[in-house]
Amino acid sequence: MEGKHATAEEVARAAGVSQSAVSRAFTPGASISAPLRARVNAAADALGYRPNAIARSLITSRSRIVGVVAAYLHNHFYPSVLEALSRELQARGHQILLLTADMAQGADATLDTLLRYRVDAVILASVTLSSRLAQACRAAGIPVLLFNRTTRAPGVASVTGENRIGGRAIARHFVALGRRRAAFIAGVEDSSTSRERERGFLEGLAEAGLALHGRQVGGYRYDGAAEATRQLLRQRHPPDAIFAANDHMAIAAMGVVRHDCGLDVPGDLALAGFDDTEPAAWPDIALTSYAQPAGEMARRAAEALLSMLDRPALTVRRQVVAGRLIIRGSSQAA
Amino acid sequence: MEGKHATAEEVARAAGVSQSAVSRAFTPGASISAPLRARVNAAADALGYRPNAIARSLITSRSRIVGVVAAYLHNHFYPSVLEALSRELQARGHQILLLTADMAQGADATLDTLLRYRVDAVILASVTLSSRLAQACRAAGIPVLLFNRTTRAPGVASVTGENRIGGRAIARHFVALGRRRAAFIAGVEDSSTSRERERGFLEGLAEAGLALHGRQVGGYRYDGAAEATRQLLRQRHPPDAIFAANDHMAIAAMGVVRHDCGLDVPGDLALAGFDDTEPAAWPDIALTSYAQPAGEMARRAAEALLSMLDRPALTVRRQVVAGRLIIRGSSQAA
Repeated sequence: MEGKHATAEEVARAAGVSQSAVSRAFTPGASISAPLRARVNAAADALGYRPNAIARSLITSRSRIVGVVAAYLHNHFYPSVLEALSRELQARGHQILLLTADMAQGADATLDTLLRYRVDAVILASVTLSSRLAQACRAAGIPVLLFNRTTRAPGVASVTGENRIGGRAIARHFVALGRRRAAFIAGVEDSSTSRERERGFLEGLAEAGLALHGRQVGGYRYDGAAEATRQLLRQRHPPDAIFAANDHMAIAAMGVVRHDCGLDVPGDLALAGFDDTEPAAWPDIALTSYAQPAGEMARRAAEALLSMLDRPALTVRRQVVAGRLIIRGSSQAA
Repeated sequence: MEGKHATAEEVARAAGVSQSAVSRAFTPGASISAPLRARVNAAADALGYRPNAIARSLITSRSRIVGVVAAYLHNHFYPSVLEALSRELQARGHQILLLTADMAQGADATLDTLLRYRVDAVILASVTLSSRLAQACRAAGIPVLLFNRTTRAPGVASVTGENRIGGRAIARHFVALGRRRAAFIAGVEDSSTSRERERGFLEGLAEAGLALHGRQVGGYRYDGAAEATRQLLRQRHPPDAIFAANDHMAIAAMGVVRHDCGLDVPGDLALAGFDDTEPAAWPDIALTSYAQPAGEMARRAAEALLSMLDRPALTVRRQVVAGRLIIRGSSQAA
């Protein structure tokens, strides 16, 4: 592998300048005259020299790598998030080291990898590991941001959608439609997203003097949500409305309600999800959903994280990005 | 940032061993006695020492980072691919640096980033940049593998599904159903996937003495495919079957056929896609599709790439992973 890449020394020799001049020419904001920079650039181009991001990271203690820990790419919200995060971080000169944290792998192994690659900062978008991993990163001095989740631990920055407000909006929508037997399909029980969405949903029902008519856990999985729906429909008085904690589970519920049970949506049962992923808008799905703007959330996350990197003393913020209820055919016939 | 991480020197001092012993303790396969390794490990644990993957990469010329260039995460095939690639590479001690190559960014800027981060190898899963970028990587001496695409340039390894065979299988299926006016919606015109799928489809129709009844370009985009479908249905004799070059476009076509035009699928028009992504199996979609096994393709890609890294003289292979036709309600009523 040696000799494949031109070195800064070779560029300095070819340009007839010092190595320090080469280094300054490639350091954003460093002091160097325009003619000197031009001479260095010409020599660098001729030799095919590129400043080595990894070697530089040893000097600056900056790798310009952000670790992104994700899971559940099957939920279509996360591919959109990943695409947006990648775009926002690349625009700010950082690249994503992607870790898809398997639940089996655990927080320690994941932290170990993040530390070995000396990531500058970490975005946690994985459901189960977030709280422990966030604390471990903070203990190791790495700025960390929770994406689409929060933790009870203090001092951890986060960007989320309007989980509680959204849950409440869906309850009010069901109530306005005259539904009186509203059920909830939870995601992963200890996830902040599922807890907050349920909390808002219960508040919205309580405003109309209603209690939850049924509750099952779908674990944010398609199969889990399908089974949860079957359980709900087996009740003596089945629900007339179901709110599933994300679109992916709501679509699973729709399949069971319509195709296994032969019921009409929304006639017999109104359905709503959360996230407003692309499939929710497909005419054959037409799912009512509370939108989370993935692009705006990613932009805020990238900005917040890189600010923390530049100014470690910055006050940690929990940002909530506004969404809105999108009503479609699954709850209200056109 | 200095002093945050314990150094190998500090571990050596604490363990009362040489720095070389510390290095050997953390190098897989290096010669070191079990008691010595245990002493080093104990000291390393006590000090929170972790071997620095970046510093090591300067010595070994290995970053243990594989660059993955992807685009179109909206096509649900790619999130599955990314998840599988991540799992397969992590299992082999490598991490993914994810670049979502915007078409506007171009091959040069992308290559520049890959080189600056000193990736060991590159997997290209982006539609438009592949051929140029593959050549540029090879010129720079970086092992490169095309995922789900091929290039006419020699010496580039690839892993694809059965594009041509799959296209032919779909044509034969339409013919067996008695369809005589089969149309094709192309993806990105110069992509190998779209070209090969179309080629197989034409061959399958030709076997039955049929020619293509209509052809439009959808560009692998939802909106593009919806517009392509409208064009096809505006023909004086509209098609009675449409094969779209991937599921994402076929689902867009389904929406237009059923909801804009009020036609029956499959009664008036049979539909098929390619990839067998998760939504194809949703009962409200029930899309006939030719399956590409993302997991198996990712496993083969990870294996092939790491073999190339270990043995640069290895013969470059083009691997084709077998798939199968999955018939659902969009082409054949249950």
